[in-house]
Amino acid sequence: MTDPLPPGSTIGILGGGQLGRMLALAAARLGMKSHIFCPDVASPAFEVTPHRTIAAYDDESALAAFADAVDVVTYEFENVPARTAEFIAARKPLRPGARALAVSQDRLEEKGFLSESGVPVAPYRPIYSLDDLEAALAELGTPAVLKTTRLGYDGKGQRIIRSINEAAAAFDALEPKPLVLEGFIAFDKEISVIAARNAQGETRHFEPSENVHRDHILKTSTVPGNISPALAAKAGKAAQRIVETLDYVGVMGIEFFVLPGGEDLLVNEIAPRVHNSGHWTEAVCVTDQFEQHIRAVVNWPLGDVTRTANVVMENLIGHEADSIVDLLGPGVRPHLYGKIEARPGRKMGHINRIGLKTGAK
Amino acid sequence: MTDPLPPGSTIGILGGGQLGRMLALAAARLGMKSHIFCPDVASPAFEVTPHRTIAAYDDESALAAFADAVDVVTYEFENVPARTAEFIAARKPLRPGARALAVSQDRLEEKGFLSESGVPVAPYRPIYSLDDLEAALAELGTPAVLKTTRLGYDGKGQRIIRSINEAAAAFDALEPKPLVLEGFIAFDKEISVIAARNAQGETRHFEPSENVHRDHILKTSTVPGNISPALAAKAGKAAQRIVETLDYVGVMGIEFFVLPGGEDLLVNEIAPRVHNSGHWTEAVCVTDQFEQHIRAVVNWPLGDVTRTANVVMENLIGHEADSIVDLLGPGVRPHLYGKIEARPGRKMGHINRIGLKTGAK
Repeated sequence: MTDPLPPGSTIGILGGGQLGRMLALAAARLGMKSHIFCPDVASPAFEVTPHRTIAAYDDESALAAFADAVDVVTYEFENVPARTAEFIAARKPLRPGARALAVSQDRLEEKGFLSESGVPVAPYRPIYSLDDLEAALAELGTPAVLKTTRLGYDGKGQRIIRSINEAAAAFDALEPKPLVLEGFIAFDKEISVIAARNAQGETRHFEPSENVHRDHILKTSTVPGNISPALAAKAGKAAQRIVETLDYVGVMGIEFFVLPGGEDLLVNEIAPRVHNSGHWTEAVCVTDQFEQHIRAVVNWPLGDVTRTANVVMENLIGHEADSIVDLLGPGVRPHLYGKIEARPGRKMGHINRIGLKTGAK
Repeated sequence: MTDPLPPGSTIGILGGGQLGRMLALAAARLGMKSHIFCPDVASPAFEVTPHRTIAAYDDESALAAFADAVDVVTYEFENVPARTAEFIAARKPLRPGARALAVSQDRLEEKGFLSESGVPVAPYRPIYSLDDLEAALAELGTPAVLKTTRLGYDGKGQRIIRSINEAAAAFDALEPKPLVLEGFIAFDKEISVIAARNAQGETRHFEPSENVHRDHILKTSTVPGNISPALAAKAGKAAQRIVETLDYVGVMGIEFFVLPGGEDLLVNEIAPRVHNSGHWTEAVCVTDQFEQHIRAVVNWPLGDVTRTANVVMENLIGHEADSIVDLLGPGVRPHLYGKIEARPGRKMGHINRIGLKTGAK
């Protein structure tokens, strides 16, 4: 089904966090309705549409009613259970599809897929046992990073191993098995690309952002980043190859490490959804990542990714948003997520600092 | 009360059309909730928040419950009944206030207010009788425009009188009385300014747009318009004087006629709300008119009105939005209002065509 869905169609969104909320806001701008499915009654996305289902992701009667109520289904998080995805996909188009979820839910699948796609990744070894880990450390050297293959985000589910003596403790600490050992990459900086593909096979990607993390959580994304045009082109090509190889439909976030010298990069990870490092697009691009995702999901042509100004996106984490009024000022465009409780490490909002004009269109 | 309302506060919005809908979307970006009050069950704004009241504007029990449920009240249309405004204002802050409504609901009040504020308006006469009209036509000459004083918009409620023979028929056709006769202005073009003031007395205004109407309905707004910097400054100063004189809180749309030669202007009319000719701001300004209005209403500092690119906003009227996909392309940012039925003359959405960069920040 590749006819464009008309305005007035309903987009089902699995997940009710800030990404689901911003997708629903973008859908509204295209004249579409949104229906949010989320188990948490306090979901921020529930505040921006009257259509909601509060139920567990394995509640098949709720899922069936949800599928009946919508025209197409997407999601705001990559850990949608495989059974949920299958159940939905049997009833309504699920975009991005089940393959994208399978690849991104498992670091080993992901690295295997990326390697087969001809995209460079850090050296890695699958770890099923402590013996595997010791052998892998001998090959890849220390330091190295041991990670769970599933359900890791924002620095959770990983340990740096600085010497082989730490191997057993790290192996025991991380669950569930199997794990993956990644060679330590002495990278200069991290960048990311937000790419999109629609069902017609059209692809677009935004310029790379340069990302800075604090306490393993994204703090700022700056565009343009301090990288060469050649490297930006390389990142864009890799991103395009990834969405094409997956027959992907929707927006994907692709994180890269830039290697010392600034001429080469590795893919760190991919996320089959709109991405925190793409929040800058809402402030300075003709089409933002949220609208781009909705366009892909409803079979519309992809939008123009042209950027009209320089920008720095800054996440507001924990209590940083409490004094939002003090953060406002020239060039500042705020976006708060409507979350009630400011827990440490919780993303409460972001601001975009819009700077000088870019030189050319 | 001039403390900033915190995120999580609820903004009550009287009116559920596209302006209320876009206000609610902007409120959501500031972490605010919206509660829409509208008699029409099919209101577009009902699709972007779970909080709604479906009731008549004179239903006092519904109004009381609505006032209890919100922290501040604003509106999307200037014809809020005076009794409704008073009822609300006795319970919760109403922004803009009752005076702004009184002035803008009555062309005679409006022209009187503008004249007293030292802002130029077209020559006009109040018309209570046919005798008044014949005397006024003798003074102001023909052609002249006879208008109702209340409830006119998009060209409704007015007649052009080309000769004194047409006076009686025009007088009889227009209701309710009194009427107002305006001298015919041979203007070069129409521009408008979106101005804002908050309760602290801070004021800001966006650059003027040049507006083109078709069948008495706004068709395009272009920024920058083809006007001199001196005229733009004159328009901005007049707009600022108007919001200051009214002790206004919120965003106001001010329409001007540019006189032949391009050096002088008259105020045509003012609207105490976000305005169709300000829809361009969402595509190219740091802060758009909808966020600016919400900021003023919740006592936040006003936002940066800097523009990052040139733009043409085009209304999609009646069936023009049916083929929205065909209107997309480079530089195009669409916004549809989620209306189900495309009646002739009905505003269904708009597109912003984002063009070349502006030269300076």
